[in-house]
Amino acid sequence: MIKVGIYGGSGYTGEELLRLLVCHPGVKVVSVTSRRFAGVPVAEVYPVFSGLTDLVYTDSSPESVADLTDIVFMALPHGVSMEFVPLFFRAGRKVIDLSADFRIRTVATYEAWYGRHKFPEVLEAAVYGLPELYRESIRNTRLVANPGCYPTSIILGLAPVLRSGWIDTDSVIADSKSGVSGAGRDPQIASLYCEVAGGFKAYKVGGHRHTPEIEQELSVLAKREMKISFTPHLLPVKRGILSTIYANLIKDVTAEEATALYQTFYREESFVRICRSGQFPNLSSVVGSNFCDIGVTVDKRTGRVIIVSAIDNLIKGASGQAIQNMNVMCGLKEETGLPAVALFP
Amino acid sequence: MIKVGIYGGSGYTGEELLRLLVCHPGVKVVSVTSRRFAGVPVAEVYPVFSGLTDLVYTDSSPESVADLTDIVFMALPHGVSMEFVPLFFRAGRKVIDLSADFRIRTVATYEAWYGRHKFPEVLEAAVYGLPELYRESIRNTRLVANPGCYPTSIILGLAPVLRSGWIDTDSVIADSKSGVSGAGRDPQIASLYCEVAGGFKAYKVGGHRHTPEIEQELSVLAKREMKISFTPHLLPVKRGILSTIYANLIKDVTAEEATALYQTFYREESFVRICRSGQFPNLSSVVGSNFCDIGVTVDKRTGRVIIVSAIDNLIKGASGQAIQNMNVMCGLKEETGLPAVALFP
Amino acid sequence: MIKVGIYGGSGYTGEELLRLLVCHPGVKVVSVTSRRFAGVPVAEVYPVFSGLTDLVYTDSSPESVADLTDIVFMALPHGVSMEFVPLFFRAGRKVIDLSADFRIRTVATYEAWYGRHKFPEVLEAAVYGLPELYRESIRNTRLVANPGCYPTSIILGLAPVLRSGWIDTDSVIADSKSGVSGAGRDPQIASLYCEVAGGFKAYKVGGHRHTPEIEQELSVLAKREMKISFTPHLLPVKRGILSTIYANLIKDVTAEEATALYQTFYREESFVRICRSGQFPNLSSVVGSNFCDIGVTVDKRTGRVIIVSAIDNLIKGASGQAIQNMNVMCGLKEETGLPAVALFP
Amino acid sequence: MIKVGIYGGSGYTGEELLRLLVCHPGVKVVSVTSRRFAGVPVAEVYPVFSGLTDLVYTDSSPESVADLTDIVFMALPHGVSMEFVPLFFRAGRKVIDLSADFRIRTVATYEAWYGRHKFPEVLEAAVYGLPELYRESIRNTRLVANPGCYPTSIILGLAPVLRSGWIDTDSVIADSKSGVSGAGRDPQIASLYCEVAGGFKAYKVGGHRHTPEIEQELSVLAKREMKISFTPHLLPVKRGILSTIYANLIKDVTAEEATALYQTFYREESFVRICRSGQFPNLSSVVGSNFCDIGVTVDKRTGRVIIVSAIDNLIKGASGQAIQNMNVMCGLKEETGLPAVALFP
Repeated sequence: MIKVGIYGGSGYTGEELLRLLVCHPGVKVVSVTSRRFAGVPVAEVYPVFSGLTDLVYTDSSPESVADLTDIVFMALPHGVSMEFVPLFFRAGRKVIDLSADFRIRTVATYEAWYGRHKFPEVLEAAVYGLPELYRESIRNTRLVANPGCYPTSIILGLAPVLRSGWIDTDSVIADSKSGVSGAGRDPQIASLYCEVAGGFKAYKVGGHRHTPEIEQELSVLAKREMKISFTPHLLPVKRGILSTIYANLIKDVTAEEATALYQTFYREESFVRICRSGQFPNLSSVVGSNFCDIGVTVDKRTGRVIIVSAIDNLIKGASGQAIQNMNVMCGLKEETGLPAVALFP
Repeated sequence: MIKVGIYGGSGYTGEELLRLLVCHPGVKVVSVTSRRFAGVPVAEVYPVFSGLTDLVYTDSSPESVADLTDIVFMALPHGVSMEFVPLFFRAGRKVIDLSADFRIRTVATYEAWYGRHKFPEVLEAAVYGLPELYRESIRNTRLVANPGCYPTSIILGLAPVLRSGWIDTDSVIADSKSGVSGAGRDPQIASLYCEVAGGFKAYKVGGHRHTPEIEQELSVLAKREMKISFTPHLLPVKRGILSTIYANLIKDVTAEEATALYQTFYREESFVRICRSGQFPNLSSVVGSNFCDIGVTVDKRTGRVIIVSAIDNLIKGASGQAIQNMNVMCGLKEETGLPAVALFP
Repeated sequence: MIKVGIYGGSGYTGEELLRLLVCHPGVKVVSVTSRRFAGVPVAEVYPVFSGLTDLVYTDSSPESVADLTDIVFMALPHGVSMEFVPLFFRAGRKVIDLSADFRIRTVATYEAWYGRHKFPEVLEAAVYGLPELYRESIRNTRLVANPGCYPTSIILGLAPVLRSGWIDTDSVIADSKSGVSGAGRDPQIASLYCEVAGGFKAYKVGGHRHTPEIEQELSVLAKREMKISFTPHLLPVKRGILSTIYANLIKDVTAEEATALYQTFYREESFVRICRSGQFPNLSSVVGSNFCDIGVTVDKRTGRVIIVSAIDNLIKGASGQAIQNMNVMCGLKEETGLPAVALFP
Repeated sequence: MIKVGIYGGSGYTGEELLRLLVCHPGVKVVSVTSRRFAGVPVAEVYPVFSGLTDLVYTDSSPESVADLTDIVFMALPHGVSMEFVPLFFRAGRKVIDLSADFRIRTVATYEAWYGRHKFPEVLEAAVYGLPELYRESIRNTRLVANPGCYPTSIILGLAPVLRSGWIDTDSVIADSKSGVSGAGRDPQIASLYCEVAGGFKAYKVGGHRHTPEIEQELSVLAKREMKISFTPHLLPVKRGILSTIYANLIKDVTAEEATALYQTFYREESFVRICRSGQFPNLSSVVGSNFCDIGVTVDKRTGRVIIVSAIDNLIKGASGQAIQNMNVMCGLKEETGLPAVALFP
């Protein structure tokens, strides 16, 4: 049994990690920390765990958590995570960091969007944890920077057309819609039921911090520097991200050929499903699962490819992907412990 | 008192017309027809009207409705509406048609998207009922083709930048999201609560029938033929359409200048509100009202203008706009009988 | 024009008062206070008011508000409200207090459930603001204690059978379900979208502070002291309270007779609608309106009467009822400025 | 591997059975029938199954399904199911019937509520499939009548106080609230998103067909004939039933003693969790799981016990309980293949 710790486990991604890990046959969660809820049983903070775990939140030091564990999931806010990740890493532990702190390879870019980085040297050791693109590197690292939720949906959605060189890389627009759990469990007016239900809005238009992460990975795929328009929106649902992505084609292809390109690209992948030509994903087919569903078509009238990708932001967009990474890092079957079927209806 | 009829009044747009008209101080609704519910009190089909109206659905002929009324709202499906509109029109009544049947000026275009048109000659008499663009023509016609919901949000969103010639007209992408009431009250699996709640999807990607209507009006504004990418999505809310619109700028402008352009363009309009620079609309600020709220910014990184517009699809996107048109046609103050404040929370 | 102030206007009931009052033809809102948002335009805190009011929240003293106004709505939390109400009252203003501070006639009862009361002498001047029961007293007072939301639904639901002496007064059970706006706009975890959506729960079982208020009024109606079981639940909707009320019949009556009793009892009332026998109200028929809809039946198998009542908790359950009271107090037509039709769908 | 068939598998309970069974390690689903969707892959009707099963709906005869299977789940409407159950039963197969057709032991009672029963003789062979009460009988039968969703929540909620003789059996009131999936996937206006979202209502007040099933089982527990008031309500959620149950105590007990009674009663049960004293369940802690969560308290003021029970209506209230029964009937560990943790948020 792999001994697992969750550092900063009282938010929704921490809870989701635990939700998945208590059913994972190959691991035992030995420590979950939370300053706010230190001393409180996890099952009191989240009654879903009633009768399923005796874990109690602790305010343990990184050192004492490192002593108990083989691998640690970091579920702290960005800026805070970077202070703890190096401690676990240097203690020889495997680390999967769910914050943004080790995703951006260029320090200057990180600092332009997030503020000062305290451990640029550790940054170099980190592997971007998107198994569909970096599986071998993930297998061989001890530090995974788990991708952001929006980036996961957009990068997986664009990888095939970028690798194939089919599109004008200056023309990419990603219109993304996310459920409210992406905003976390902090009590703020904008996340209240009465503010969200029945509403819908764009936010941080032209300025969301996931932009440099997305552009970094798209640029690698395109082998040239890319800039995109990325507009996040807040959906009145608890879970899920759906991204609608537009790009101008520079090759004359049909919708069927586009679908075939995607099917081939992701043929070996367990967690990416390509819709039949003419079909597009629905959030409700992925919520509760680790799948990324993708539909693609060609709009002949305008010469654009239109790609729609859907994930559960807390699973494939965060905690599920983190466990997928853990499975790869620890030599387990990649699907182990990850839910197979979405919860529908 | 203006005597009003609603022909085909048992769907959501018919109900919304009645909901607004029973509070309108200048009109009296004298007839509401429905084949399905003929003989049933409106208040039984829609208990919101309990105690507020004694109207009973009838299966009256157009002739007998024409006899009773000064103006008729047609709330029939497209294809059906075109058979009845000419009867009222030729009987000398004012007609506001909420279907798509008289919105497309070119018969060939109509027929390419909708099927055969039976009264192309009446088509020529119709005025496209967007008061912000066609107020004078509406004042002088007896036949208004009330705009579609998606077109209203997109045309109002793009009019200022198209008229000003700021954008590359080949670059327009409209990513629109609509509440479920847009699908009407027909019982179909895709509109069931369990299929919609918690979900989100794109539909009719690249092929929605509102496309030619949108392109027709944008082309008038741009004074050149335009094609756009238009992707509708189904939001898990009852009411509202929010469109996020992207276009490449061909002029070097700031976000503040863009906002100023919009404020100037809509300065005289009662039902269009422009958000302060850096702010964007939320569906929940317009649902229940006849407003179209618009926010605009410039993404300097990519050279694009991004416009977000929001309406209540049943009010400004259908029945409210129809009443606004009636007010214009009948010489009433344009705001009469239209709700002032959205229902929030 | 009556000059109106709202003291403590940044919560949902304050916003709802303003939402209704800006459309009220007989009043002008001259002051809205908020410590938290002093200096901020109301339309920034609540964008629904954009273009509709220039009001700015102030931190004005009661004295300066009293100078400007004829009538003041108090929308402060209980315990706080009692400190300000006497100032307005003694300054000769009409006051409608939306808190619980002046609803309980017996100081000891108030203090058993809420804590110390600072102005028991003012308590005696207050009239319980349920116009259907206390219209004449409301007309002649300057201090109205506006009823709680749950009490409104339960008292109106039980008044006919209590007055008629049909039921065993020891057998009453009220199972009530409320939308989330009842919890106010304070950011707290339990009111977050992700905690509420898709969920449902009972809370404060056997111990909700509305219990003594309900029992006080039921006891008046029954002319004997009553105790009831009252269980509130949190519904995943923004607005609305539906109460399902059970009592053992001590008289042999039919469902039709029960319906007739209710129709007679509320015959003269504008804002109470009785469903036809066999029909029961739906929240969606009252949300957005000032109606209380009531359905009643007799369960012959068990000898119980079952009553279902529905209101919009922010309108008939708070701000709409407050305006109804203002209309009565100021000699206006009781329906003035109150919305006629619920927002459906 | 146990070979499983689902007869009538295109509704929500059929889909839920398949959703759970494709992850069940001890079974293989070999046949799923549907007249409506015969020939269509299951993954087209329900895209959640995309990539997870190659099953295609068939219109197979009972005989041919019986040939292929060891055990059959019947997910047909009541009245229809009774025509097919005897065929499988007489062919020697194990049968779990999710309809109401074999739940009522007395033919006269069945016929009073549902219409004529065609196979009263088979009725006698059926065991009521509530494992917490009938585990041994389930182990030894080949025909299980799987309980209704409302009955499961109410019977489990009342069993401890009825067995212990603590309550007045004439005083029981069950106020139940169910998610929309309980109404099935038939397209009907009342189940449309726009009719349900934001609303809430009671329905079939005093006349729901689950009443005799509930009373039958409560009477067994109480060892005397019981009648209850049972009021179902429609919650705007997809899944879940929460029942709030009231009864007059005939014994002087505390809330703590009541909680202790429940903990003892269900001590050995895997799928019943008792909340700590003073705590009550939330639907969101059980949705997606097979748990029944129960909270209980004593209202000293009125002498009543108040019990709140919560289940996922499609899992513990239907398909999950059916699989629990299958596990018992087939000698598997009772928890096999059933999801451990609810999906929260």
